[in-house]
Amino acid sequence: MDTAGTHRTPHRVTWPTLLLTLFAVPALAEEGMSAESVYYGLNNLYLLVSAALVFWMHAGFACLEAGLTQSKNTVNILAKNVAVVALAGVSYYVIGFNLMYPGEFNGFLGFAGVGLATATEAGYADGAYSMFTDFIFQAVFAATAATIISGAVAERIKFHAFLIAALLFVTFIYPIAGSWKWGGGFLDAMGFYDFAGSTLVHSVGGWAALTGAIILGPRRGKYTKDGLKPIVGHSIPLATLGVFILFMGWFGFNGGSVLAMDAEAVSRVWVTTFLAGCAGGAAAMVTAWVVLKKPDITMILNGMLAGLVGITAGSDVIMPWPSLLVGGIAGVLVVFAVVFIDQKLKIDDPVGAISVHLVCGIWGTLAVGLFSVDPEHTVMTQLVGVGAVGAFTLVTSIAIWLVLKVTIGLRVDEEEEVNGLDVAEHGLEAWPEFKSAT
Amino acid sequence: MDTAGTHRTPHRVTWPTLLLTLFAVPALAEEGMSAESVYYGLNNLYLLVSAALVFWMHAGFACLEAGLTQSKNTVNILAKNVAVVALAGVSYYVIGFNLMYPGEFNGFLGFAGVGLATATEAGYADGAYSMFTDFIFQAVFAATAATIISGAVAERIKFHAFLIAALLFVTFIYPIAGSWKWGGGFLDAMGFYDFAGSTLVHSVGGWAALTGAIILGPRRGKYTKDGLKPIVGHSIPLATLGVFILFMGWFGFNGGSVLAMDAEAVSRVWVTTFLAGCAGGAAAMVTAWVVLKKPDITMILNGMLAGLVGITAGSDVIMPWPSLLVGGIAGVLVVFAVVFIDQKLKIDDPVGAISVHLVCGIWGTLAVGLFSVDPEHTVMTQLVGVGAVGAFTLVTSIAIWLVLKVTIGLRVDEEEEVNGLDVAEHGLEAWPEFKSAT
Amino acid sequence: MDTAGTHRTPHRVTWPTLLLTLFAVPALAEEGMSAESVYYGLNNLYLLVSAALVFWMHAGFACLEAGLTQSKNTVNILAKNVAVVALAGVSYYVIGFNLMYPGEFNGFLGFAGVGLATATEAGYADGAYSMFTDFIFQAVFAATAATIISGAVAERIKFHAFLIAALLFVTFIYPIAGSWKWGGGFLDAMGFYDFAGSTLVHSVGGWAALTGAIILGPRRGKYTKDGLKPIVGHSIPLATLGVFILFMGWFGFNGGSVLAMDAEAVSRVWVTTFLAGCAGGAAAMVTAWVVLKKPDITMILNGMLAGLVGITAGSDVIMPWPSLLVGGIAGVLVVFAVVFIDQKLKIDDPVGAISVHLVCGIWGTLAVGLFSVDPEHTVMTQLVGVGAVGAFTLVTSIAIWLVLKVTIGLRVDEEEEVNGLDVAEHGLEAWPEFKSAT
Repeated sequence: MDTAGTHRTPHRVTWPTLLLTLFAVPALAEEGMSAESVYYGLNNLYLLVSAALVFWMHAGFACLEAGLTQSKNTVNILAKNVAVVALAGVSYYVIGFNLMYPGEFNGFLGFAGVGLATATEAGYADGAYSMFTDFIFQAVFAATAATIISGAVAERIKFHAFLIAALLFVTFIYPIAGSWKWGGGFLDAMGFYDFAGSTLVHSVGGWAALTGAIILGPRRGKYTKDGLKPIVGHSIPLATLGVFILFMGWFGFNGGSVLAMDAEAVSRVWVTTFLAGCAGGAAAMVTAWVVLKKPDITMILNGMLAGLVGITAGSDVIMPWPSLLVGGIAGVLVVFAVVFIDQKLKIDDPVGAISVHLVCGIWGTLAVGLFSVDPEHTVMTQLVGVGAVGAFTLVTSIAIWLVLKVTIGLRVDEEEEVNGLDVAEHGLEAWPEFKSAT
Repeated sequence: MDTAGTHRTPHRVTWPTLLLTLFAVPALAEEGMSAESVYYGLNNLYLLVSAALVFWMHAGFACLEAGLTQSKNTVNILAKNVAVVALAGVSYYVIGFNLMYPGEFNGFLGFAGVGLATATEAGYADGAYSMFTDFIFQAVFAATAATIISGAVAERIKFHAFLIAALLFVTFIYPIAGSWKWGGGFLDAMGFYDFAGSTLVHSVGGWAALTGAIILGPRRGKYTKDGLKPIVGHSIPLATLGVFILFMGWFGFNGGSVLAMDAEAVSRVWVTTFLAGCAGGAAAMVTAWVVLKKPDITMILNGMLAGLVGITAGSDVIMPWPSLLVGGIAGVLVVFAVVFIDQKLKIDDPVGAISVHLVCGIWGTLAVGLFSVDPEHTVMTQLVGVGAVGAFTLVTSIAIWLVLKVTIGLRVDEEEEVNGLDVAEHGLEAWPEFKSAT
Repeated sequence: MDTAGTHRTPHRVTWPTLLLTLFAVPALAEEGMSAESVYYGLNNLYLLVSAALVFWMHAGFACLEAGLTQSKNTVNILAKNVAVVALAGVSYYVIGFNLMYPGEFNGFLGFAGVGLATATEAGYADGAYSMFTDFIFQAVFAATAATIISGAVAERIKFHAFLIAALLFVTFIYPIAGSWKWGGGFLDAMGFYDFAGSTLVHSVGGWAALTGAIILGPRRGKYTKDGLKPIVGHSIPLATLGVFILFMGWFGFNGGSVLAMDAEAVSRVWVTTFLAGCAGGAAAMVTAWVVLKKPDITMILNGMLAGLVGITAGSDVIMPWPSLLVGGIAGVLVVFAVVFIDQKLKIDDPVGAISVHLVCGIWGTLAVGLFSVDPEHTVMTQLVGVGAVGAFTLVTSIAIWLVLKVTIGLRVDEEEEVNGLDVAEHGLEAWPEFKSAT
């Protein structure tokens, strides 16, 4: 009934800390503990928790994309999602991070050198958090942008072609576009506002998804002489779980973007994020019910994501009431966008990524101009940001897709597509025991 | 090898924060940073993390209920769980929150007006956390109560009838019952104790589940002339994952209910919650082994949930040793309750929600009277709370179910029930590739 | 538009807190709130969040192991994972915790008495965190060690035999081995270093997995006269989700092992953990592609886990660049180990647990000697720790397996193994609707 006195010693007194304290700034040593030093710990904890939640979004994308595609391509899409995290983590460490946050630079392109230092320098991020915290929060963000693409090009792209594209994307395109605003570049200077990345993450991923889906062309059998043949996802439970994961992760994505545990701002961002996601789901359900005559669950799910993407750019400057409006409009928008892109434009996007991330990413960015409490945010400035990032991502992603197409080839051959990518590319099936005669 | 100096600027210096600081109280500006202001940030962080964990429970309920029902009704039950979160988020914002926490009121019914203010007023919650933090933590709680119902009425209720019932429930019934205790109403005044909601959340949901299951009647083919035909769940992996998610979320559900990062109390609540959940699972396994001759995994899973529901009312006032007892008894209880309700009462509850949430919710509330370290908690007072909340929820939920029944109808027609609700109500199947000839 | 003034009262003023404040040390009462007391709250919050993440790993193991085995044994493996958590939680509370942290002891074996006190004593853990926080963080760790075993002995072990073995393991073997280092025992005294448990958790579990797999023998039909017949896992989506969960949980596993919210150290541990996991996944993918000709997703997944296991022993003393190396080597190693153990040694480990946890656990422990920034960490000392813990676990686990074998029997009979353990042992199927003719 008694408890121990000797335990794993708290880290404060171990050697590396002592060493690092030499060049680390806000030491939490007992002597001299101050409200500021505890606040530094609190900020770091908040951002690390947020990083874990954003990391968790990768599981969400994997489940969502696997659920909304066919079982014969499930191993492939899961492998893409896992491999992107692995490769992005390494490449963003080596190059991407310091390309996105180059320090003093010309506003268009800068690079602070490879990798990280071994300890946080004094004054880093105005003393708000450590370099390591900064890196991991940014790194998990980076991989999400690449993951957005994988859904739109699913079920027909070559595995290694996708990996190369995703790697170039995470290492160069995403960080360079990001540097224009978050790195303090020219979009930042001109007043463009994108709090957590409706444009910098979601539209950037969305543009690459759009160009990829167009250049690859639709899946065989989707658009036939006899009209559009829907190709349904193989697991709605997986897709639903994926959306719950993504919603949960969004609290870290938007909330963590406050970059400090400023309780009033942080909790308001959580609320606007929550309300916009709920409103998006509710609005998409009603819209689908009216327009498509059924409360299609994939529309409810994409509506939630649409609302979340929509509020991302302005979740700190849009108040709770208008956040319901921003999310709700996104939910309506996504239903029409999915139908329009699929049936009118005949662009084959198996999971609706273009509608969710590109269309609602643009909507959310413009919504800042309409609903922000800061009068300096205007629709015009927001449009310039959308246009600049869009043009850059369009051009560079088209270039990547085309170069890959003429060199190693983008698309799997017909036999592989018909039989499924899993066996051909990976040598195993996702659900080997449950194959039925569909 | 060098790192950047310019980054996404920490939020402390942005415009909205400056504005809001005008009416927000515990500003975290560098100047004047105090232990109190950092503690305010810490409290808010703790409650936001708890809110994320409780939000996560919605994924748990979705997985559990989908796993324990048939694949032909899986889209339907997933859609219910997703839609409930979406609708509850909006409606609890507009009405429910201020009905549950009306401020000064007569102890039975009060309403503080629609929606939230745009910033936290001075002295809000005694300065412990922001209004937004309060709202989001309460909002994710609210939706769980409605989700409890969906399992018990699964596989036979009309989708829109369920949504209307759930909406009325989250918007009015749950908040009004909650106001009696947590809002400072008459049950609070008379000393009734329900720390995190064995009664206010779980029993409330459980009573509505009970009345719904009775009024709907059993699924076709369950109780036949030839006796009871078990209808087995289609995915034990989903159900198991759901319980792990719920268990994890319960740390936020019970732990967050401390409403402050009081380390000693919070960590003790986490421990009693953990021990009761473990004891419930272990006890249910042994009970099922002895009584049913097999360690039925659905019993182990429901036993864990039973232990967690059981400790919810007293997780802060019941110490670790007795928490093992409270959880263990709940684990035994749930096995007998499931069998009794199913075989003797012939009430068809596909997931065992009534046994877990109502039976063990009542047990947990009474257990406070037995095991609380506070001598003012008595079984008699607890019984009054159980009775008052039970009577109110019984009457109101019966009214809702009956009005829906005679107006739009509660139950799907025979053909739809036999073929499954997914295709008829939602136009798609959960696992379209795996249908086998069962 | 107004908000309430009366809410669920923050816990600070409730009765039990007042009572406990009498013997609890760093009270967070308003009067006398200091930076130290807030830091105490912050530390506790960090460790509780870490505990939730480690708890979450149990869901990860359950999904991974279920996904990599056959559907006819899925209920069984899920039940093992759930039951282990339930039993371990109780037994580690009653005995394990105070066997692992016995306070003053002879360095080999000590016991501080059953259970926990009802409040934290003054000076507990140097005032860094509460006794309850300490317990729950350690308890969720304990169960992971047992869960490692279940994958290696899957699809052929008797349910109750496994439970007894796991219970003995969590209650005695794991805590005793752990006391040698983390409890301040002889390995600690001689300078052995194992930050978060490459040896104390992963190798310990891995040795028991190895001996169990050998003593049980391979699954029927695996090694035949016609050579090795691969038995493929039934759900790659489950396995993939499991690895994402485990990766996420590892931030708590390694990060929480700092045992204090020392921001610089904590955030660095998160980064090295993240980089090693990513490098492990990337390296395993490339290795599998080269060696096995396909980017086998199970290898990418095990590669991530291998990298995470590898960095576990030194995640605080190995810097980011070398952490890429430690993780990458683990990723290469695991591919060869899986093939070697399976094809050369003919030890049947359905999920690759021996390769991931034992092989890479040893590698990670030795890597501390190679890459630690602390010159006192040597390969030789690390080898002694690996050897001492390995010898102890080998001997005791062989004893347990053999005693079980000659008493109640370890292995299910042939008919049960062929038909699957689910129906025979648990009376239900995991996916009753999807059985196909494989």
